[in-house]
Amino acid sequence: MTVTTVSVESQAIKAKKAARALSLLTTEQKNEVLYKLADYLENRAETILKANDLDLSNGREKGYNEAYLDRLALSKERITDFANGLREVAELDDPTGDILSSWKLENGLLVEKVRVPLGVIGMIYEARPNVTVDATGLALKSSNAIVLKGGSSAINSNKAIVEVMHEALDETVVSREVVQFIASTDRETTQQLFTMKEHIDVLIPRGGASLINAVVENATVPVLETGVGNCHLYIDRDADVEKALSILVNAKTDRPAVCNAAETLIVQEDWLKLHKEALIATLSEHDISVFGDEQVVSVIPNAKLAGEDDWKNEYLSLSIAIKTVKNVDEAIVHIDQYGTKHSEAIITENKETAATFMKLVDAAAIYHNASTRFTDGGALGFGAEIGISTQKLHARGPMGLPALTTVKYQMTGNGQIR
Amino acid sequence: MTVTTVSVESQAIKAKKAARALSLLTTEQKNEVLYKLADYLENRAETILKANDLDLSNGREKGYNEAYLDRLALSKERITDFANGLREVAELDDPTGDILSSWKLENGLLVEKVRVPLGVIGMIYEARPNVTVDATGLALKSSNAIVLKGGSSAINSNKAIVEVMHEALDETVVSREVVQFIASTDRETTQQLFTMKEHIDVLIPRGGASLINAVVENATVPVLETGVGNCHLYIDRDADVEKALSILVNAKTDRPAVCNAAETLIVQEDWLKLHKEALIATLSEHDISVFGDEQVVSVIPNAKLAGEDDWKNEYLSLSIAIKTVKNVDEAIVHIDQYGTKHSEAIITENKETAATFMKLVDAAAIYHNASTRFTDGGALGFGAEIGISTQKLHARGPMGLPALTTVKYQMTGNGQIR
Repeated sequence: MTVTTVSVESQAIKAKKAARALSLLTTEQKNEVLYKLADYLENRAETILKANDLDLSNGREKGYNEAYLDRLALSKERITDFANGLREVAELDDPTGDILSSWKLENGLLVEKVRVPLGVIGMIYEARPNVTVDATGLALKSSNAIVLKGGSSAINSNKAIVEVMHEALDETVVSREVVQFIASTDRETTQQLFTMKEHIDVLIPRGGASLINAVVENATVPVLETGVGNCHLYIDRDADVEKALSILVNAKTDRPAVCNAAETLIVQEDWLKLHKEALIATLSEHDISVFGDEQVVSVIPNAKLAGEDDWKNEYLSLSIAIKTVKNVDEAIVHIDQYGTKHSEAIITENKETAATFMKLVDAAAIYHNASTRFTDGGALGFGAEIGISTQKLHARGPMGLPALTTVKYQMTGNGQIR
Repeated sequence: MTVTTVSVESQAIKAKKAARALSLLTTEQKNEVLYKLADYLENRAETILKANDLDLSNGREKGYNEAYLDRLALSKERITDFANGLREVAELDDPTGDILSSWKLENGLLVEKVRVPLGVIGMIYEARPNVTVDATGLALKSSNAIVLKGGSSAINSNKAIVEVMHEALDETVVSREVVQFIASTDRETTQQLFTMKEHIDVLIPRGGASLINAVVENATVPVLETGVGNCHLYIDRDADVEKALSILVNAKTDRPAVCNAAETLIVQEDWLKLHKEALIATLSEHDISVFGDEQVVSVIPNAKLAGEDDWKNEYLSLSIAIKTVKNVDEAIVHIDQYGTKHSEAIITENKETAATFMKLVDAAAIYHNASTRFTDGGALGFGAEIGISTQKLHARGPMGLPALTTVKYQMTGNGQIR
């Protein structure tokens, strides 16, 4: 056992111990904690920004691209956004303690199904320092302790944010031990978290596909799988041109690095023949690069021939893969093979075709005549989200506070036996 | 790739394909299927019993104990029970298709959260052939296909049951491919199921701790962890003697091999001093063997000194571990360390102590003045159960039909973009 091993495990144990006290807090006490964290972050913005500058200059030295640096960069305004995010979480309903159902057995035994916190959440994430704040806020509001393991590129920013949050916690009834930050950035440390079943109740990876897959493949701690979105937009034979093109532009070009972006356009071939000019004009106007099948390449200027990877991977950029199909069934088969069960859309004026697509496509969110962009906790009215689940168990789609809870059956009797 | 590998994977693929048609069935169609299965099982009982005889004589040859053989043994009556179990499942509410909530965004986008089947369930289980029938019934009622991998000791019974069910399915609108039975009994075959993420949506292991742990540790397919119950009964200082002893007898001796049996008695030391004669008489009257801490050994005749394993393992027999504590806090610490988060009970007339225990003990079911035996889908009114979840994600405690479903957000718009 190296020193690091002991220390990461001891941090997880501290979190587990501290979590217990959280389950005894009232909603008001938890909200006070969140407001206190928010105030401290705003008041101590300079300290955080100084640490962030260090991360940014390290990032520039390492040659990170601008989009990456942009996600890493903080400003006074963004820190105020973080603080307001925490205040919004304080305004959300407390998910814990709710009696979801209750009934009496014939023998008089009272059964109550109660919503309770999970315990300790392990958050493993990449560049964005906002996750440090958002995840902490959601964890505390749902009475969970949290172990944070951020990416190395944001290490200074994350450390500074956690230090400020610890100082804030010291001013409350809650121990700072409920927020544990793993300062080591090596891979081995992350892997130690994968198997700490005794101390960590759930792991939530947020970041690219390789991070998420590493956690899913190797963790024995239960995982909430989030975020990889190889989302498809299917333009049906009966699609309205205007709706189809405006949804295409929105689903592809509005923040292309986000997981609810469309990565593949599937287009019904008759529709393509009829509306190719409009499609070509739209793609070119928005600087969208195309990788297509042979039919697409023969129709769309500058389109390159797509390989297997183009159907599989997220571009997270202004590139799009385009595939032609004969009908909705072929579209569904393609989505079945390459989709990541995140968000899938059909554009059609034919209600029957839409109903088939909705029923048979297996994904967290299925859209008829709307952009995939609404797969987002904020857009759906869940308040802040802990991530977007692409798994089927426990929580699916945008996860708000209830995803961080479980249930417990409380039985009250007077000597009942069976 | 061996022949077996290809064949198991091809079975899983067949299940996945066949599952799709299930999601298009009406509740009535599914119920007809269940009634048909029930009728066939009853009518073909002789065939099944003949196969069961083969398993029983093989089991006797291998020297299995009577309790084991008893769980394996079928009779005309038990097969009728299986059939009636299927008919009861038909009477349960169909969990799929329910719109759990729906709302409109300000831009008019309709959001519907719909309950949908998981897809394909992989069931890995040991001796009891009733699982073959129960799991199939619950899977079909919730529009899921199922891949069954039973234990080698019941292989002939299970095969015969599945053959009869396949013949019954041939008489319905449903393809027999929705029920796949893995006929090979070697370990490698089971392990192949662990990683078939593309084809199997969830694995449910039912059996002993070593089977369950093997699945939990090695599967990349999501797992619903069931059944290991190292359950505790805590007799508090303020416990009523009569309640305490009758609950002890029920929780320990009524079907001791079942997971909701009490395995450790924790007793507050003042109560023990006051009521030791009654406790000793009760233990002896019911032939309960005791493994205790030093204080227990000094008080209870014939008690043996408990080792670490006695606190950890399920006896699943008439043995019990007994530990003395000073107070409820010590009891909670012991349960925290050795419990499996299944069912935990406190016997006390002190409501405050009971509330502390209920709030701080982390388990699926917590009892105040009642036997742990009520942790059972039937007893709680869920109808048939697929198992008792000891995990916190997705489903906790006895799992009825909703545990075999997930949700899908269906969004209907008229061109909404963000």
